[in-house]
Amino acid sequence: MSEAGFARLPSPPYYAVVFSSLRNGEDPEGYAAAAGRMLELARAQPGFLGMESARDADGFGITVSYWESEAAIRAWRDHAEHTEVRRHGRRHWYAHYELRVARVERASGFVPAP
Amino acid sequence: MSEAGFARLPSPPYYAVVFSSLRNGEDPEGYAAAAGRMLELARAQPGFLGMESARDADGFGITVSYWESEAAIRAWRDHAEHTEVRRHGRRHWYAHYELRVARVERASGFVPAP
Repeated sequence: MSEAGFARLPSPPYYAVVFSSLRNGEDPEGYAAAAGRMLELARAQPGFLGMESARDADGFGITVSYWESEAAIRAWRDHAEHTEVRRHGRRHWYAHYELRVARVERASGFVPAP
Repeated sequence: MSEAGFARLPSPPYYAVVFSSLRNGEDPEGYAAAAGRMLELARAQPGFLGMESARDADGFGITVSYWESEAAIRAWRDHAEHTEVRRHGRRHWYAHYELRVARVERASGFVPAP
């Protein structure tokens, strides 16, 4: 993944939704299409700041989405198409997931000197 | 990854350190040994609650460690061996990293019915 893997975020405070999941390995095409569509939809939501995601070859993944406010997170949770995709995912794609909503209080980063 | 990939956490509130990184691809053995040693050390720290980690085949990864308090996070940051490994990592292992410290306010999870 290129530098595009990193979200470009404002200074804290902001909010993070940490979504850890274990895929069941079924329907990789349907899952990939839905993941792309959800990123496209999320980007269009008010208060969306960015998203980062990584998944091991064995199906365990972490996606963190960043938001301006808890109200923006609730609005995204209640988005009709997102709600339907989550329902589908519980039936078809996940062996287990955990979701944590957090308030980011400080941040720092590092890129090596050239 | 088995269910061992998920941290078993208490009810919120607690704290999360979200570490997103892009590996430079160098020294995979040294990096893997240090990652294992850091997990072993972190587990022995007061206030450590758990850790989850995933990395794409192309080197972008997210590791989230969970802690009882900000004081526990500061103590881990200041741990001498951890400090030395971070310094080594900036010189040898990472093309870029971002770190965010957040207070987890709510959590939920899902496992399919059998």
